[in-house]
Amino acid sequence: MSAYRSHTCGQLTAANAGTEVRLSGWVHRVRDHGGVLFIDLRDHYGITQVIADSDSPAFAALEKLRAETVIRIDGKVKLRDASLVNAKLPTGEIEVYATATEVLGPSDDLPLPVFGEQDYPEETRLTYRFLDLRRESLHNNIMLRSKVVRSIRNRMWDQGFTEFQTPIITASSPEGARDFLVPSRLHPGKFYALPQAPQQFKQLIMVAGFDKYFQIAPCFRDEDPRADRSPTDFYQLDLEMSFIEQEDVFATVQPVIQGLFEEFGGGRPVDTNWPRIPYAESMLKYGSDKPDLRNPIEMQVVSDHFRGSGFGIFAKLLEQDGTEVRAIPAPTGGSRKFADRMNAFAQQQGLPGMGYIFWRKAEDGSTEAAGPIAKALGHEPTEAIRLQLGLGEGDAAFFLGGKPETFEAVAGRARTEIGRELGLTDENQFKFAWIVDFPMYEKGDDGKIDFSHNPFSMPQGGLEALNAQDPLTIKGYQYDLACNGYELISGAIRNHSPEIMFKAFELAGYGHDEVEKRFGGMVKAFRYGAPPHGGCAAGIDRIVMLLADEQNIREVIMFPMNQRAEDLMMGAPSEPTNEQMRELRLRALPKE
Amino acid sequence: MSAYRSHTCGQLTAANAGTEVRLSGWVHRVRDHGGVLFIDLRDHYGITQVIADSDSPAFAALEKLRAETVIRIDGKVKLRDASLVNAKLPTGEIEVYATATEVLGPSDDLPLPVFGEQDYPEETRLTYRFLDLRRESLHNNIMLRSKVVRSIRNRMWDQGFTEFQTPIITASSPEGARDFLVPSRLHPGKFYALPQAPQQFKQLIMVAGFDKYFQIAPCFRDEDPRADRSPTDFYQLDLEMSFIEQEDVFATVQPVIQGLFEEFGGGRPVDTNWPRIPYAESMLKYGSDKPDLRNPIEMQVVSDHFRGSGFGIFAKLLEQDGTEVRAIPAPTGGSRKFADRMNAFAQQQGLPGMGYIFWRKAEDGSTEAAGPIAKALGHEPTEAIRLQLGLGEGDAAFFLGGKPETFEAVAGRARTEIGRELGLTDENQFKFAWIVDFPMYEKGDDGKIDFSHNPFSMPQGGLEALNAQDPLTIKGYQYDLACNGYELISGAIRNHSPEIMFKAFELAGYGHDEVEKRFGGMVKAFRYGAPPHGGCAAGIDRIVMLLADEQNIREVIMFPMNQRAEDLMMGAPSEPTNEQMRELRLRALPKE
Repeated sequence: MSAYRSHTCGQLTAANAGTEVRLSGWVHRVRDHGGVLFIDLRDHYGITQVIADSDSPAFAALEKLRAETVIRIDGKVKLRDASLVNAKLPTGEIEVYATATEVLGPSDDLPLPVFGEQDYPEETRLTYRFLDLRRESLHNNIMLRSKVVRSIRNRMWDQGFTEFQTPIITASSPEGARDFLVPSRLHPGKFYALPQAPQQFKQLIMVAGFDKYFQIAPCFRDEDPRADRSPTDFYQLDLEMSFIEQEDVFATVQPVIQGLFEEFGGGRPVDTNWPRIPYAESMLKYGSDKPDLRNPIEMQVVSDHFRGSGFGIFAKLLEQDGTEVRAIPAPTGGSRKFADRMNAFAQQQGLPGMGYIFWRKAEDGSTEAAGPIAKALGHEPTEAIRLQLGLGEGDAAFFLGGKPETFEAVAGRARTEIGRELGLTDENQFKFAWIVDFPMYEKGDDGKIDFSHNPFSMPQGGLEALNAQDPLTIKGYQYDLACNGYELISGAIRNHSPEIMFKAFELAGYGHDEVEKRFGGMVKAFRYGAPPHGGCAAGIDRIVMLLADEQNIREVIMFPMNQRAEDLMMGAPSEPTNEQMRELRLRALPKE
Repeated sequence: MSAYRSHTCGQLTAANAGTEVRLSGWVHRVRDHGGVLFIDLRDHYGITQVIADSDSPAFAALEKLRAETVIRIDGKVKLRDASLVNAKLPTGEIEVYATATEVLGPSDDLPLPVFGEQDYPEETRLTYRFLDLRRESLHNNIMLRSKVVRSIRNRMWDQGFTEFQTPIITASSPEGARDFLVPSRLHPGKFYALPQAPQQFKQLIMVAGFDKYFQIAPCFRDEDPRADRSPTDFYQLDLEMSFIEQEDVFATVQPVIQGLFEEFGGGRPVDTNWPRIPYAESMLKYGSDKPDLRNPIEMQVVSDHFRGSGFGIFAKLLEQDGTEVRAIPAPTGGSRKFADRMNAFAQQQGLPGMGYIFWRKAEDGSTEAAGPIAKALGHEPTEAIRLQLGLGEGDAAFFLGGKPETFEAVAGRARTEIGRELGLTDENQFKFAWIVDFPMYEKGDDGKIDFSHNPFSMPQGGLEALNAQDPLTIKGYQYDLACNGYELISGAIRNHSPEIMFKAFELAGYGHDEVEKRFGGMVKAFRYGAPPHGGCAAGIDRIVMLLADEQNIREVIMFPMNQRAEDLMMGAPSEPTNEQMRELRLRALPKE
């Protein structure tokens, strides 16, 4: 017999009754019922109840055990009394009567209990991550993550993709965030960078003639702390294809992601109709480029009803160029109390407020519009708004005016809030949409034109558009996948023509030399036969968070950093030795 | 129809004859046969012959194409004349008569031809890696690597292992090599390290209660240049198991590795009998702890025949403590010419020479021993040696004497040389052996005791052995897998007891505080219920090299560094910006 076990702690059933077995695992819980010990023995696979009475030679040793001690048990499998069968436990029909035991790994008093999963401060949980990970919920999350990654891999291979590893010690990939640098010892004064993403490498893989690449790729960004992301690194499903167009990418990705959510979504419905929503339409209807389509509310432009109307604020505002009034319909939200609460919400979000109309039953039984806007507008425009929005008695509408970019984001958040407060959003499902036609360029606060997203995307209309159009009107073959209000995927058809690329960068103010310098490897490659190609990247951590229904990224990472980018368990970062600094020819400057 | 292709370049067969198709790919080769163009169009999947004559509207465009231009072709599939069928090509039955074409990606003159795969300097190949990768042999190696990694993953999952990713930005893992450091911006003056291996993390995963871990793990070591390894990073199949003993690891690993070599070894026989060879025996018989068992030669100790003999050099040498004379039998090597060549080989390797005896047919038809040693020894001892080694007429034996550690390594190389020269080594196969019972400690040149391999291994005999035995006699539960003369895998049953660990480190001269400081995370974890555990790590690059029959690691890595740890394609490492250095609070010192 093995020195440690004949069975795991999740394996024994009534069929094993009467046999001699050996188990090893952690002492999950000990109960002493008047001279009879009940020990829940736990391993990776499950929990088995071990019992011992004073007749057992193991009793004395078992009686002294601390929680989380690792022990070996020899014993005999017994059927439990029918009244004591635990149907929730796979091993719930049996118990093991211990005849011998051995301590394999003693335990000190615990800084963090495993049994019961009480809430503990995150610093303690991270310092003693090896204990935290023994808890069922975290253990399950980490197992889920592994299974998700495995499933992604299999689904990608099944679609004819090949996984390639790209370098981790490399040159900076110009994704726009901050690089982690790695000093070179052999080339003092020079640095490598950890890749922010394998963007250039995957494009080079296409140029090298491999047709369908994917990778579960570690990506590194030296980010400032934020609750919902890791401050150092994250994983993405990175993929790229040659000789394809945008819809080919969608046709590839949907079965992978949809299948994944069906497989691991715990039975929550997964929408199979993934609409394509142009960026501009998404901003208008949902106030976001990652709309939560579980929420049925769609915003609408209602400017015409306010132009020259009695509601002076909006009427006047609309005289300026580029302004609009948009309405957020709020079915079933027709009460002053709710309307006031939403108005307050808008104020918290930094707007002066959010005007509203709500419709109620008048004393004569008819439907009447209420609220200051309705009063100022008068009946006819108010009624026209009601009809446009398809609302009626008991409903409300909220209004935001100005240049859309000044209120769009708040409108989006208000829409979310309204959907949730009114119970319009059915949270128990997954809804997806491809957001397409992102603008190539945007105007910064300084009035300068810059890329709005990925500079490597192919502009719609190609070189002609770049030469002829106002840059701000040029769209890219660039797309995101939104799911339940999150951006799960981002991708593009790439610009594989050096000529178009130089022009595209020129419009964003980058000279020929700078492009050569920053993206030289890739630009050079494009001169020797580059295929049309495109792809995307999906955030693994985010997908697992959605599937596990967790809000904190650290709940789906085995050994996460804390928010200050410290590994409390291993003690990183730490002071280097003098010898290390000397070899790297570096000196640390005193703190500022 | 897709904008780029109806079929790949590896897909069309006689069954498609007569159909209109669209293909895209690279212009592999163009031949002009008197007004008829033959274009080999290549993509990831294969090559298709495209033809055009002057009647084709595409002729003029096709005539001008440079090699490696990416084009689209529209055309009609035609059966080739029976005499022109190319049976070696899956598409060899057909050709495509081009009616339209479009250049999708033009190509400049090539710095490195793809067609023909001429030998080119490695600097050129690495600078234009995207071209080099288009060559069939490298393309195949990289595809092989991906398939190998996939197969490893599936085999591990099938055995009940789960893949977990461990941190890449972390604290130093004390593997004894040099760390790559990563300066922390949020904690100026402090550094992270890239992991030399996930050693501590995988042990923590066991302590955390996950039973069977594996990972295709990137490992980072700042190594000085050497031909057969990457100067920055490598990949290993890292695995760890709880509640197991050494033989459990062997039983887990053999089906994975054996299956892999059977699947990808190109039909070369894979030995299924994997002997366990104690380290000491391996050094004696093979002069190596990674013996090539394809070579049937086994060395033997022959000291007794030389003690007090007429061969004064060895007789005198054997009077010193710790000396031995060992023989390398060389069946079929019985000629003075061969013996002299081997003697010269030993001299090249830094030894004074290698004595020998060879056996030939005497004038009277009997077997006679020849060479200076035979003469000095006399008939009886010479004959005793022949009988011990099982040699006869036409064979030879070589002799090395002294303290084994002074000649063992050369003896091992001589054994390899003899096996190869005499054709005794059947290279066309894979033979494996587990090397076990490695010594825990060794004595350095300075006379100090240190760990000979992994300090985290469990010493055989546990605490008792550490307390009672001469450290140099203590063996560890430490093992390697040797294959064809390479170390493929290294592993150990770990020391999971803090008490035994502190004692083990104490013997190697490490105080309690230093152990706490360097391995604090792990030692702390062992105090809260650590299971017995062990595992190993297998070198992926090495495995792929063996399977691909390549000698240079850069032939099995998509984007390798050169030997000076430079990425010539991407231009890494490079000078940081002032802004980056300021943010990191670092200053580069001038070169020494």
